[in-house]
Amino acid sequence: MNLNETRKGVCVDGFKAAGVKEGKYGVALIVCQSPCASAGVFTRNSVKAAPVAWTRKRVGGGLQAVVANSGCANACVKNGLKDAGEMARLTGKALDVDAGKVGVASTGIIGRRMDIGVVGSLIKKASGMLSKSPKASLDAAKAIMTTDTKPKQVSVELEGLEVGGICKGAGMIAPDMATMLCFITTNAALSESVLQKALKASVDKSFNMAVVDGDMSTNDTVLLLASGRKKCRPDAFQKLLDYVTMELAKKIALDGEGASKYLEVEVSGARDSESAAKAAKAVASSPLVKTALYGGNPNWGRIVSSIGGKIKINPDVVTVAFKSRKGEVNVFDRGRTGDLKKAADILREKEVKIKVNLRAGGGKATAFGCDLTEEYVKINAGYN
Amino acid sequence: MNLNETRKGVCVDGFKAAGVKEGKYGVALIVCQSPCASAGVFTRNSVKAAPVAWTRKRVGGGLQAVVANSGCANACVKNGLKDAGEMARLTGKALDVDAGKVGVASTGIIGRRMDIGVVGSLIKKASGMLSKSPKASLDAAKAIMTTDTKPKQVSVELEGLEVGGICKGAGMIAPDMATMLCFITTNAALSESVLQKALKASVDKSFNMAVVDGDMSTNDTVLLLASGRKKCRPDAFQKLLDYVTMELAKKIALDGEGASKYLEVEVSGARDSESAAKAAKAVASSPLVKTALYGGNPNWGRIVSSIGGKIKINPDVVTVAFKSRKGEVNVFDRGRTGDLKKAADILREKEVKIKVNLRAGGGKATAFGCDLTEEYVKINAGYN
Repeated sequence: MNLNETRKGVCVDGFKAAGVKEGKYGVALIVCQSPCASAGVFTRNSVKAAPVAWTRKRVGGGLQAVVANSGCANACVKNGLKDAGEMARLTGKALDVDAGKVGVASTGIIGRRMDIGVVGSLIKKASGMLSKSPKASLDAAKAIMTTDTKPKQVSVELEGLEVGGICKGAGMIAPDMATMLCFITTNAALSESVLQKALKASVDKSFNMAVVDGDMSTNDTVLLLASGRKKCRPDAFQKLLDYVTMELAKKIALDGEGASKYLEVEVSGARDSESAAKAAKAVASSPLVKTALYGGNPNWGRIVSSIGGKIKINPDVVTVAFKSRKGEVNVFDRGRTGDLKKAADILREKEVKIKVNLRAGGGKATAFGCDLTEEYVKINAGYN
Repeated sequence: MNLNETRKGVCVDGFKAAGVKEGKYGVALIVCQSPCASAGVFTRNSVKAAPVAWTRKRVGGGLQAVVANSGCANACVKNGLKDAGEMARLTGKALDVDAGKVGVASTGIIGRRMDIGVVGSLIKKASGMLSKSPKASLDAAKAIMTTDTKPKQVSVELEGLEVGGICKGAGMIAPDMATMLCFITTNAALSESVLQKALKASVDKSFNMAVVDGDMSTNDTVLLLASGRKKCRPDAFQKLLDYVTMELAKKIALDGEGASKYLEVEVSGARDSESAAKAAKAVASSPLVKTALYGGNPNWGRIVSSIGGKIKINPDVVTVAFKSRKGEVNVFDRGRTGDLKKAADILREKEVKIKVNLRAGGGKATAFGCDLTEEYVKINAGYN
């Protein structure tokens, strides 16, 4: 049972997309021929942007379309909800869809009022460009980029069952949910409760394990729309969904602001999976580990220390290994320092894995991250 | 009742100090004429360096001297406890003090065995230089520096009651305790239980509220030695102690690795003091806030978002203000953005305060921090 990667992005069976950019603003549209069963996972930040409030309320009733803009977060402003509703209304009108079935998402600067005139004209423009071609999905992925350097889309197919997604990420990737917008489409015929459970489980393993700088945004949104054209088993769907979210999460980490290296942290032997996740994220979010990775410095002490700061461990039984295309080496194994010269050589690669065995139980987890560079500082000092 | 700052550092009534540096290693000694009542607060990282284990066990029985080295953390190594004990033994011998009454502390790279030959010779050398002059305290403060750019010492006097301290900090300042060594001396005549309670309360308000990069070290140690020569009331002592720890915590934040600006975050109106502390530390540790501060960018959205990521707030009633020598301005006040041009002007100063009123209760807290600069990345990419 092998998945096939496709080039469709969100333009899987039944869906069309479009995307346009103009100056600071961009607008992406995704629409299905008929109303979909839908599911959503949102930021746990207590400060929620208006589009999150709008969409959270409506996702349970099924969505047929999604409108997303970059350039303005529509957060912490008067009239935010009104503007989010207006985006839905304009989209519904342009697509001939009930406005209550339009999911809305925004990304950009907090505290600035949306220029609804500009966004409205972009919605109109995009609605005239809707297409089911892979390029249309890529245009949508491009339209929601902010500090991202690359559009991000992944889609897979297995025996006619399709799942596709686009997302934006880059900076502000969070301990609880990667700060990002992600839209996933499928032709699966599954109930909303099954979809919601599947999405939550998938997000926990993927986006919630991706770390760029540890801040959690006001706008995080993952939406799943299912056209219902293909009967399938929930476990088969989960497998495809997990593939898509995991690959998107990796792309987000790889495209972390200013990142020069991609990092995977694989923790095994933790007391349970919850402490494994805490440990993996502690390593992936430590500024000291991230700068050491950037400097190609095999400083395993920072790895052990960052885990010990979050969960109880016994360093005397711990093994830490570095792995890349250059090979694998234990840098710290039950009290002994390993071959640091070889470790430094392994760290020279662009994609590096840190493997930690805590020898305290059967808990496992993997976190995704990147290094911390001068470029990250430059980008975030200037972004406005 | 006004405190007087003095120049004594740890060389208050009854104490002598010395410090020497040689290559990567440095050794500081502090000794009292007679055994002291003592108290200690240590890292909560589950990975504890050997000197922490040694000193924690002995601090309750009273200490008479402290030996601290820079250059090696003596953490995650075989024979760590043996080496820590050897440092105490050599110090005891050189100072004619019971080795069980010598507190030991280390800072430096994790996972490398201490060169006890070098440290031993530095202990011997320092013991021949003991003096009660302010310079001796400063030498001790210099000897424990790692990436610190300045030695840190503060001392105060009030009607014959004296409290003085030295510390090292710089990077790796923590959510739970600033990664650092701090040694405080006093002539107060107070019981160990009073001293321990006073120290814990003081550290919670000062070092535990200082944030450089959010990592918690394996070696954090604060020790307090009281010579007992001056009768005093616990509340008078607490006042002096708080002054010393607070000023030292500020110096640590100000000297954060690569920092170009000092930041104070004052949160009021929180539900309780615990959530106020969480909020203040969330702002002071957010990489997005820290880079915005570096860039002189009055991005109040990142401030509100970083608090909302940690505690429940209602952004509609929140006020955020920036303050410096240039003045004070609300940048966000109950839904309205303020004068950002003036705010940018205020941010140009080297010392900046962010004031947040959550309007949810009476809880207050202040955190100390610094900006995040390219220089931080450079220092930590290369440090070994």
